[in-house]
Amino acid sequence: MSTKPPKFSTIGHSLTRPDAQGKITGTTEYIPDITIPRMVHAAPVTSPVPFGRLETVDPTPARSIPGFIEFIGAEHIPWKNQVGVIIQDQPLMADSVVRYVGDSIGLVIAESPTAAREAAQAIRIHIDPLPAVFTIDEARDASGPFIHDTNLACTHQVVNGDAATELDQADRIIEARLSTPFQEHFYLEPQGCIAIPEPDGSFTLIGSIQCPFYVQKAVAGALGIPFNQVCVKQAPIGGAFGGKEDIPSELCARAAVAAYHLRRPVRLVYTREEDIQLTSKRHPFQMHYQVGVMNDGILVAAKVLLEENAGAYATLSTVVSYRSSIQALGPYRVPHVDVVSNSYYTNNPPTGAFRGFGSPQAAFGHERMMDMIARELGLDPLELRLKNLLRIGDTTVTGQKLMVSVGAEETLQRAANAAEWPRKVKSASGSRYRTGLGIGTIHYGNCLGAAGWALDGAGVKLSLARDGSVAVAFGLVEMGQGALTVVQQMTAEALGIDPERITVLPTDSRQVPDSGPSVASRNVVMTGNAIRKAAEALLPVLKRTAAETLDSSPESIKISGDKAIDTSSGDFLTFDALAEALYLNNQPMESLGWWHVPRLNFKPETGQGEAYFTYSFATQIAQVTVDTLTGQIAVDHVWAAHDVGQAVNPAGIEGQVEGGVAQGVGLALTEHFLLDKGQVISDNFTTYLVPTALDSPEVTTQIVEAPEPEGPWGAKGIGEPAIIPTAAAIANAVSNALGVQVHEIPITPEKVLEILKHP
Amino acid sequence: MSTKPPKFSTIGHSLTRPDAQGKITGTTEYIPDITIPRMVHAAPVTSPVPFGRLETVDPTPARSIPGFIEFIGAEHIPWKNQVGVIIQDQPLMADSVVRYVGDSIGLVIAESPTAAREAAQAIRIHIDPLPAVFTIDEARDASGPFIHDTNLACTHQVVNGDAATELDQADRIIEARLSTPFQEHFYLEPQGCIAIPEPDGSFTLIGSIQCPFYVQKAVAGALGIPFNQVCVKQAPIGGAFGGKEDIPSELCARAAVAAYHLRRPVRLVYTREEDIQLTSKRHPFQMHYQVGVMNDGILVAAKVLLEENAGAYATLSTVVSYRSSIQALGPYRVPHVDVVSNSYYTNNPPTGAFRGFGSPQAAFGHERMMDMIARELGLDPLELRLKNLLRIGDTTVTGQKLMVSVGAEETLQRAANAAEWPRKVKSASGSRYRTGLGIGTIHYGNCLGAAGWALDGAGVKLSLARDGSVAVAFGLVEMGQGALTVVQQMTAEALGIDPERITVLPTDSRQVPDSGPSVASRNVVMTGNAIRKAAEALLPVLKRTAAETLDSSPESIKISGDKAIDTSSGDFLTFDALAEALYLNNQPMESLGWWHVPRLNFKPETGQGEAYFTYSFATQIAQVTVDTLTGQIAVDHVWAAHDVGQAVNPAGIEGQVEGGVAQGVGLALTEHFLLDKGQVISDNFTTYLVPTALDSPEVTTQIVEAPEPEGPWGAKGIGEPAIIPTAAAIANAVSNALGVQVHEIPITPEKVLEILKHP
Repeated sequence: MSTKPPKFSTIGHSLTRPDAQGKITGTTEYIPDITIPRMVHAAPVTSPVPFGRLETVDPTPARSIPGFIEFIGAEHIPWKNQVGVIIQDQPLMADSVVRYVGDSIGLVIAESPTAAREAAQAIRIHIDPLPAVFTIDEARDASGPFIHDTNLACTHQVVNGDAATELDQADRIIEARLSTPFQEHFYLEPQGCIAIPEPDGSFTLIGSIQCPFYVQKAVAGALGIPFNQVCVKQAPIGGAFGGKEDIPSELCARAAVAAYHLRRPVRLVYTREEDIQLTSKRHPFQMHYQVGVMNDGILVAAKVLLEENAGAYATLSTVVSYRSSIQALGPYRVPHVDVVSNSYYTNNPPTGAFRGFGSPQAAFGHERMMDMIARELGLDPLELRLKNLLRIGDTTVTGQKLMVSVGAEETLQRAANAAEWPRKVKSASGSRYRTGLGIGTIHYGNCLGAAGWALDGAGVKLSLARDGSVAVAFGLVEMGQGALTVVQQMTAEALGIDPERITVLPTDSRQVPDSGPSVASRNVVMTGNAIRKAAEALLPVLKRTAAETLDSSPESIKISGDKAIDTSSGDFLTFDALAEALYLNNQPMESLGWWHVPRLNFKPETGQGEAYFTYSFATQIAQVTVDTLTGQIAVDHVWAAHDVGQAVNPAGIEGQVEGGVAQGVGLALTEHFLLDKGQVISDNFTTYLVPTALDSPEVTTQIVEAPEPEGPWGAKGIGEPAIIPTAAAIANAVSNALGVQVHEIPITPEKVLEILKHP
Repeated sequence: MSTKPPKFSTIGHSLTRPDAQGKITGTTEYIPDITIPRMVHAAPVTSPVPFGRLETVDPTPARSIPGFIEFIGAEHIPWKNQVGVIIQDQPLMADSVVRYVGDSIGLVIAESPTAAREAAQAIRIHIDPLPAVFTIDEARDASGPFIHDTNLACTHQVVNGDAATELDQADRIIEARLSTPFQEHFYLEPQGCIAIPEPDGSFTLIGSIQCPFYVQKAVAGALGIPFNQVCVKQAPIGGAFGGKEDIPSELCARAAVAAYHLRRPVRLVYTREEDIQLTSKRHPFQMHYQVGVMNDGILVAAKVLLEENAGAYATLSTVVSYRSSIQALGPYRVPHVDVVSNSYYTNNPPTGAFRGFGSPQAAFGHERMMDMIARELGLDPLELRLKNLLRIGDTTVTGQKLMVSVGAEETLQRAANAAEWPRKVKSASGSRYRTGLGIGTIHYGNCLGAAGWALDGAGVKLSLARDGSVAVAFGLVEMGQGALTVVQQMTAEALGIDPERITVLPTDSRQVPDSGPSVASRNVVMTGNAIRKAAEALLPVLKRTAAETLDSSPESIKISGDKAIDTSSGDFLTFDALAEALYLNNQPMESLGWWHVPRLNFKPETGQGEAYFTYSFATQIAQVTVDTLTGQIAVDHVWAAHDVGQAVNPAGIEGQVEGGVAQGVGLALTEHFLLDKGQVISDNFTTYLVPTALDSPEVTTQIVEAPEPEGPWGAKGIGEPAIIPTAAAIANAVSNALGVQVHEIPITPEKVLEILKHP
């Protein structure tokens, strides 16, 4: 924790979450708790095979199940049978081909969830199987039948200088092939939504939804109705982590089609097993790094091939592929680069958005490489990083010159100091337990970047009531990350008032403009800037009225400390009195704020230019203890230093970092996602090992503040950076402990024993 | 109907109501159709006596009624036990005194409405009676105990010049005492609401609500929570006519108190009989006019005393009293005036807002006087009015000089021409049937006027989606008057787009700022101007983006006919394409509009100055046939000419006029509200005779357009002017038919026979 005194009156102070009490006491109502009169229940009808031609679907046997109401299939969709987020490759319900075990064929609607599931099992589905592919290698090398027109879902590259020539001229080339696994989001609350046909012909969707405006588009597209006829409301969300970015569009559009036909509200909530089988995961990566380095440790060139297992549909693969290509070489100066990132369709469940969007995978790549290079050159891994780290004035691999807000070095130094690097880690040779330390240093492009610029705007509405209470509507969502708290704080700061006055409303598409997706650690930056804009629009009205009431001039009025103060006389109005004065003077008491990311000059064909408008930086140092007898790894401590530009809610940042580290421990060590020909084997808490509190290390968080002028009050994103370096740091620590290079995660006990047997 | 070609592309065209289909086919869901999970039902517990000290309330006997849940009384109110709209004279639930039969003592909450009512009957209430007063005379002359600190609820005056002296110097003084009755709103849908305690601690109120922001204030006050914790949503409203201005605050705050304690949604819907006994009515007026006139018919001075029966609580009496004092002498030049308007508390149900707010009563006064003066002077009633009518440049009795938008004369001429005035109405003397014609000419101050200026602002939010659909949120409400249609039209006109793109959202306090009450014919003027402001904020963004897309300059772009046209080249973008371009260019796609009535310079102590910012004018001429055998009166035809400034939806204006005339027929003839010591006798459709279609005359509507520069596109209000002259015109026609002056309405058959017996 930073101990510097906060520069601002509310920003930088730790606030209690407004949603804490409901979540702790259990009064918060999630989708399964919400009942709508006349509501019916849906269960998914899905493909039992990984790839095939859908010949017939016969609901006849289901009709006799008590409570059965209807089978809703592709033929019921009034308008477009398409739910692809970016690439239009995914039918809402299969009409000719199924591409993974769990691919949607339709919904059974029944009077209870149990009846719906029983009836769904009874539907007779006839599919002609096609030869399926599951691995990146199989997908890349297949000669057909292809999963879509081709098995290549998308490709991105970053090319600068002449990597081939410069590699040849480097003192050494360090090369490695690395791989990362599927990861399941395992949010506590499975996907769910309710589609409500309104008496006026419009549709309301309530759901555990990360991106209300994706849902609006999907439902409008499926039903063939205008966007203004689709109202999307966010229910409280029991975790999302990216997994509720793309998938809720599927659930909501399917439920909406059913609601459209039945004229009854339809609730669709996945069971845990359905959720794991049907919904998207983190992309497994295969990575081939060749890094040219001089003997003094200066990096000169790199050639990188990233290959991603996209699963059956692209969903957000293009974004994941883009981001991993941009960040493939970490926060380092590498003058000559040739990075290619290819995503391949396979007949697995789709892989999509997951906290970090390919960044933890890329971080595993570049940070494992840095440690291997250090080892080859006999350099301290910290020293090697310091030699190559991006600093103010340096240029990224995309040719973007960074002139502000580069906290990379400070994160490295702060984490190293905290961890007392280079600490001699004592592991008596021959001891059963071996301890190691490992560094992970990363950068993270804030918001959507050049690939998603058109979606990178966000809106806010501030409403002041005559009693001085304030409501804030914002276009992103609270999904556990603490959005409500930071929105409350930033509004208080922007208006100079007490945060207690402020209520942040649940997101509702009727209250806010399309503010893009709630992803990419966007909330603080986007909503914060939109709040500033909205406050800029409201403050002149407040000051004018205060000046009239205090018989002063607007220029002399300062609103701070919950008062409007006439700086010329010292007279003041309480904010309550000011609100009442506004009301009695018939002044506008609402304002809108809209902010978008500055235009980015970027060439997709070479991956050169402004990839993101700014970057977060972080270093995590992990200490692990490996039990060489059982192969089990304990992460003892993680020292995490994160450059957040400016901390808004330090307690929230600590929470994000502790959560990110825990999820990173899962990615690195425990979460072993097992598939058998596209069928998920590890489909519950018993077989898929999410780290528990006992598996989580002690975390020491250091907040580094390298202010970003375009960020609100200097702030940058923290949600994703929190997880990005963890697995890399742990893998480096394990390599350090064992003296053997780890090329693959998760490092399960079996793998440790295997490594020890064949180092 | 005006047959002039419309000046605008959407404004001035008759549009189908967007809410018509649901209302006609029955799919619209009113409060009794809406169910919330875990909802319980409330029934009112009320005073059986008109005045007394509340000694004890014992719910014990009710507890044994099956389904009984709880009795909620004054002791359950967490914060303020006060629900007075303007004067703080009304407890939410009685705690010491009851003041009318029906005064609230509390609510019984039960599992069904039937159980709730059965249990409400079983509550043991002990009241010590006090001597009650029911008439204005009794209230004025009482020496105590007073109903409140005094029996005078409020007083207003309009004093200009020296009325006493000038009356003395007039050629003649015409004097009369006139009176008007209670009128029951008899909206088709009785009052109802649902109070929902939300999991986050806030409260949602859904109801048949004319003034959502009054409800917000009342609920926040009763519960002691901030305004931003009270979300008020308007359900479809089955008629209101002012009766849902004040009363929903009572229902909602009481239901909210119950919901607060039980943590369950509470629905409170009045039966017809409860509604009539418990809720507000139109004020009965006693009027004493003394008008000084020269022999040529020029009015020189007037002394007027208006006395109103306010019932047990003031509710909106101050506004009714204010408006009737301002309009007491009609649209005429009267240089010397002395008007006093006093409202007296009585132990009847409260009287409050009712379409016209005292105007139909004042119109009955001044128009009966004009006919009596004409008769005294031997002048044609039309001629007398033309001699004295307000024209451009004239000054009202409050000293307000009218420089624009004075359509009075045109309404009189147009109505007279249509009615072929002075038509000889043939009634063979000695015939059983006698026919007569009567004129009613009125003015109506638009919006709230000086007495309510602080509330006279309104807001709008325009939201454009990327598919080109538009949502409009507005702060007033649709209550049957056609608000949705005119809002849609004005938005289409302001943006230059097809009205089909536009959806007007149900009013929701979370979407719009406090826009004051939906009363006083405010919607077209207030919302229309707010729409213009919102469009002014959005259009530059639209034009800039269109210019960029069309490679032109914003100054050359014109948006009309659903296209953005480059006037320099003739190139255009469809509005769909423009919306998509805005989206892709990350432009703000929402805007707010706020408009308030210009500041009014008015002195309440003398009633002099700008009483209202503009006036609507109207003339209705009624033809009646009186059956001298039965006393029954048929209104054969009403020729109605209304100066609306600019017609927005001509079909809507015709609807308003036809509805207003019908309601005026009820006031004039059929609606006989009977009380026995404060107990309503005529408490249902059988005993209280609302005119049916067969009682309603043929109506010929003439639209007069004297544009008001401050009105949107020149428009002024029509909702209330529609009813104001009707009863006066009918009474004049009856007086004309019978040759006997009518001083009192309703002119029931009994009264006709009485008049004929004792002329």
